[in-house]
Amino acid sequence: MIIVLEKDIVQEATLHIIGKLHELGLKNHAVHLNGQSIITVSNTPVDFDTRVLKLMNGIKDVFEVSEPYKLASKSWKKEPTTFEVNGTPVGTSVINLMAGPCAVESEEQIFTMAEFLHSRNVKFIRGGAYKPRSSPYSFQGLGKEGLKMLRAAADKYDLNVVTEVVDLSLLDEVSQYADVLQIGTRNMQNFYLLAEMGKQNKPVLLKRGMQARIQEWLMAAEYILSGGNEQVILCERGIRTFDTIGRNTLDVSAIPIVKELSHLPVFSDPSHGTGIRNRVAPMSLASVAAGADGLLIEVHHNPDKALSDGPQSILPAQLDELMSQLCPLANVVGRKLDYQLQNSYLRTES
Amino acid sequence: MIIVLEKDIVQEATLHIIGKLHELGLKNHAVHLNGQSIITVSNTPVDFDTRVLKLMNGIKDVFEVSEPYKLASKSWKKEPTTFEVNGTPVGTSVINLMAGPCAVESEEQIFTMAEFLHSRNVKFIRGGAYKPRSSPYSFQGLGKEGLKMLRAAADKYDLNVVTEVVDLSLLDEVSQYADVLQIGTRNMQNFYLLAEMGKQNKPVLLKRGMQARIQEWLMAAEYILSGGNEQVILCERGIRTFDTIGRNTLDVSAIPIVKELSHLPVFSDPSHGTGIRNRVAPMSLASVAAGADGLLIEVHHNPDKALSDGPQSILPAQLDELMSQLCPLANVVGRKLDYQLQNSYLRTES
Amino acid sequence: MIIVLEKDIVQEATLHIIGKLHELGLKNHAVHLNGQSIITVSNTPVDFDTRVLKLMNGIKDVFEVSEPYKLASKSWKKEPTTFEVNGTPVGTSVINLMAGPCAVESEEQIFTMAEFLHSRNVKFIRGGAYKPRSSPYSFQGLGKEGLKMLRAAADKYDLNVVTEVVDLSLLDEVSQYADVLQIGTRNMQNFYLLAEMGKQNKPVLLKRGMQARIQEWLMAAEYILSGGNEQVILCERGIRTFDTIGRNTLDVSAIPIVKELSHLPVFSDPSHGTGIRNRVAPMSLASVAAGADGLLIEVHHNPDKALSDGPQSILPAQLDELMSQLCPLANVVGRKLDYQLQNSYLRTES
Amino acid sequence: MIIVLEKDIVQEATLHIIGKLHELGLKNHAVHLNGQSIITVSNTPVDFDTRVLKLMNGIKDVFEVSEPYKLASKSWKKEPTTFEVNGTPVGTSVINLMAGPCAVESEEQIFTMAEFLHSRNVKFIRGGAYKPRSSPYSFQGLGKEGLKMLRAAADKYDLNVVTEVVDLSLLDEVSQYADVLQIGTRNMQNFYLLAEMGKQNKPVLLKRGMQARIQEWLMAAEYILSGGNEQVILCERGIRTFDTIGRNTLDVSAIPIVKELSHLPVFSDPSHGTGIRNRVAPMSLASVAAGADGLLIEVHHNPDKALSDGPQSILPAQLDELMSQLCPLANVVGRKLDYQLQNSYLRTES
Repeated sequence: MIIVLEKDIVQEATLHIIGKLHELGLKNHAVHLNGQSIITVSNTPVDFDTRVLKLMNGIKDVFEVSEPYKLASKSWKKEPTTFEVNGTPVGTSVINLMAGPCAVESEEQIFTMAEFLHSRNVKFIRGGAYKPRSSPYSFQGLGKEGLKMLRAAADKYDLNVVTEVVDLSLLDEVSQYADVLQIGTRNMQNFYLLAEMGKQNKPVLLKRGMQARIQEWLMAAEYILSGGNEQVILCERGIRTFDTIGRNTLDVSAIPIVKELSHLPVFSDPSHGTGIRNRVAPMSLASVAAGADGLLIEVHHNPDKALSDGPQSILPAQLDELMSQLCPLANVVGRKLDYQLQNSYLRTES
Repeated sequence: MIIVLEKDIVQEATLHIIGKLHELGLKNHAVHLNGQSIITVSNTPVDFDTRVLKLMNGIKDVFEVSEPYKLASKSWKKEPTTFEVNGTPVGTSVINLMAGPCAVESEEQIFTMAEFLHSRNVKFIRGGAYKPRSSPYSFQGLGKEGLKMLRAAADKYDLNVVTEVVDLSLLDEVSQYADVLQIGTRNMQNFYLLAEMGKQNKPVLLKRGMQARIQEWLMAAEYILSGGNEQVILCERGIRTFDTIGRNTLDVSAIPIVKELSHLPVFSDPSHGTGIRNRVAPMSLASVAAGADGLLIEVHHNPDKALSDGPQSILPAQLDELMSQLCPLANVVGRKLDYQLQNSYLRTES
Repeated sequence: MIIVLEKDIVQEATLHIIGKLHELGLKNHAVHLNGQSIITVSNTPVDFDTRVLKLMNGIKDVFEVSEPYKLASKSWKKEPTTFEVNGTPVGTSVINLMAGPCAVESEEQIFTMAEFLHSRNVKFIRGGAYKPRSSPYSFQGLGKEGLKMLRAAADKYDLNVVTEVVDLSLLDEVSQYADVLQIGTRNMQNFYLLAEMGKQNKPVLLKRGMQARIQEWLMAAEYILSGGNEQVILCERGIRTFDTIGRNTLDVSAIPIVKELSHLPVFSDPSHGTGIRNRVAPMSLASVAAGADGLLIEVHHNPDKALSDGPQSILPAQLDELMSQLCPLANVVGRKLDYQLQNSYLRTES
Repeated sequence: MIIVLEKDIVQEATLHIIGKLHELGLKNHAVHLNGQSIITVSNTPVDFDTRVLKLMNGIKDVFEVSEPYKLASKSWKKEPTTFEVNGTPVGTSVINLMAGPCAVESEEQIFTMAEFLHSRNVKFIRGGAYKPRSSPYSFQGLGKEGLKMLRAAADKYDLNVVTEVVDLSLLDEVSQYADVLQIGTRNMQNFYLLAEMGKQNKPVLLKRGMQARIQEWLMAAEYILSGGNEQVILCERGIRTFDTIGRNTLDVSAIPIVKELSHLPVFSDPSHGTGIRNRVAPMSLASVAAGADGLLIEVHHNPDKALSDGPQSILPAQLDELMSQLCPLANVVGRKLDYQLQNSYLRTES
């Protein structure tokens, strides 16, 4: 921490500041450099509230030199974090695809989807069993029955299950059935839940809060990492801005920024990020072009009858079509995507 | 719900739309008015996702006629909601003051504060025992011990306890000690927690999410109301905007808007809303001028040594000074504030 | 400016940085304090782009010690700026009221309003002759004819004219008729216009850009001040946030912040700030409670027939009613408002 | 326009509303559909202020059926707008690249850049001669001398000139030298300037206001189109959000949305959109992947010595490197980019 004193500070105020730093146990060194007095503090606690000093007479400004997060930062760990989920690598040059319906709705639905994904060589199925809904009158998910269906379908078709933990009280139950634990946008700063995630031995997919600054997102990851769980995936899913024309604004520009700051893999969710089916393809392409390590895409066989978020779910055939562009695009940016492309969409590039 | 068709819609698309409405069980009537075809639906479910229709060919736009909330709305209940907390009325023309430290830190601290508040005729003491902190390395509160201290101090000095439920798993514990259950800004859309709040027989102080639209805030209240708990207090506490000069931007303008839309009492928290001690007084005055029914103010005897949020806590003497202006200001806008004013701050208005 | 070096910086990078500072003509002193190397620069140009240094290898962070504005700052001038407009003081403890229609529409309209304002002892009439409209198909104002009417009405009833300069090409024309030159929200960063305002010898009312950070607002004032015109009034008029329930969000909290940072008078415009007539009164009260030095209020005798912004204009009787609360409220916060209160609204405070 | 009446409306209010519509000259038809009374208006003026009706007793809501813009809309013109600038097509499947320094700084600088761009087959050179700067103390551009240099360099190397008109008073001067007239982000709602742009016979590159909703951006285009100038290019350049980690947030998601709504070509400016050199490449790729029709990129031979925005300018070699990825990426999404790729960066795709 660097403290800059006012140029016209009186002796009394200086002494008061020094006394305060002593009282707070902050080791400090003062220096007078071309008319400006500066105090550096070498042992600032990571959570120190700089407002305490900013309010003191004679202090012009206080600057924090360190990021408030450590373990999530590239200065802590330079090489990208990679890990395997039952043999499937995450965070490598191979882009991960997690697909499936917004919510598990029936056995028929989830098995059909699982079979489809398996046929395309997708390794992760997503689906919600407990749904956080903004209206108390909306479909809230099938609960435990949904989890069982999801697991059974995944087992039959050799898929990993990605599903959300909406409340700490459901963690044990969800953990029984899930391979990747998802933290939703509204829980990104549910610190009790995050702290428990740090004790799990399963990967956590941490969605960005729709209003979260990138630094706060990394602080949320820090909660998990500091608990001992190193398998964290960050997932951009759209932020809230002054424009309401889209449901959310997928912040593609966050992808390269997070990759500068952190070693953690960064995914993108263009389904929630746009809220409208026909914007999913362009934003999927844009996300991978910007450096995303994976995608979370809502796919539904019959989105018109989906119990939630049908309008942002694409059809299986649309996924095929998207992948016919996304696979070669991934190659252009030095990545790979192991989707089983369909003949009708194979691009002939002469 | 009103559906507006495209002017150049083809017969086939019209039939497809009608079929779809039938399939969804939506009772509809079509009318052709000066060149524009309109369909009204009389039994739209309250949580209907209008995107389902907006994506159909031939539909120009879909408008929702009803608010997505009912019980929180003035069309449901015209007169303001008032209730008593152990004999102290809330939501009447008498403005409520809830004051105290950000966090319970020690017996000495909380008893000193309780004694002070009692001497000023304040009826509610606030204080956190479990603290949601954005850093995993920060002071997280005294927990159950803090709750016990808070209760003991309140009992001795005849105060009501306002404290936060940070996680559902702590609800039973907090309920034992609290008179008013607070839901924090980051939990405003923690729907599991809200649903349980609906089953409590204690008032709930629901802080606005720092990124929540007013409609979402009322929907969060609806979760509680629809569970059967009618004692909900809304509390504005600062929103997040494009400017970072203040910690938050206290949205004073939300106060008259919410009072237009809802019958629930609306409080203001200028401490979190500003984050800086010397802005608490002007924003307290502004909140009451704008129609707030109560204030939540952080007060600390020794804010420089506070374990959290010291810089936004005011001193007891500053509360006295603020009240010397706030009491007569309340009178000007037709309200009352029963603070025991101190002589030194008594205003002589000739 | 303070430059913090990386802890593991190599000698070569250090030399490169020092060379760069030399090349840029920046006088610097380096110091090694408890493991951290810091360089201070004493002659940083006020517009220096710190990104130039931030991008260099070995530099961890760069902090600006000075505000980018000088003349607008309280460190330049401690006492509040006050001046007179034809004998009426601005920026003193007496709160200024500027009222009138959104746009000048006819002689009858503007004379009626002027007569009314005069009868209430208001000293400033506002009204637009050229209107910036977001649609090319909207009423664009009466132009020069409107200015003439406004001036004639003001002359007859001893009022000062406040009106907007929408484009530099109209400055000479508007200056002929106006006593206070208004810069609208969309022109707050029209630097060509601001620079010319600096050369005028009339007060400038500078509205805050609806998206402008407070620092940018003060920088815009700096453009005018640095041109030699010291008569600048800042006017908060509502910002844009993530919520669309109101037309704008009047940022009452900006008022105490600007008054901390600057010596310039700060006004509030609750008409544009809310966009709805019945929210004008509570937000006027809140603005003055928060410390505003003046108010800009749209008043119209027949708002239903107003050619622009009728819905946010209040009726003369509503202004009377508002003032019956605002005058005593001003007294409570140590201010005065010289409105000629009407008997029916005189408050009897026992 | 559709007006929804309150269910419990009294006869008097209904008559009052009908009278008002008559008075306003609005042709209306009322219908009573399953318990809901609705009034449709067939001749609503495009700029009608619906607040006028929303404030009336008995009216529950008012919906606008039409967009406030016409000529900019796809319902006006379905096929994409294309035009030629001195023989170079804009808005076709061939992606346009506009590159060059932020500001014209010297003859040597601009001729070097022009020669480079010509060697790469780029057809447009960008550069500012008049610069809108947020500080009055910053470099404001070379003015007319800069325009002359830019024109001379462009003429020698067969390039089109893209440069900004910062104020209406400079329009004639800039028009003499420019092939494409740029409107900057802070002027997007400078309606006087926009109106004059409608009278020019040169293409206009209209940057999105950093706080502008997409609808407002299209309304700004409407100003130009309604004046008779059909050659408008929209350019996304980064918006302002709650996060300050980047200078701006390039809103890639706006690209597919605008292309749904409008026939106008949409460009992207990743230089201003990110503010940092090493984020320009990923965001350029993302923009084209999302459907951008062109890019505006700041390139500088010696960005460390640039007089403005050096940190966001890339080096010529970095442009070569970016294009080695962007050209094949364009092919993947069915577009083409005629850059003269350099051997060292030619990708061998097996």
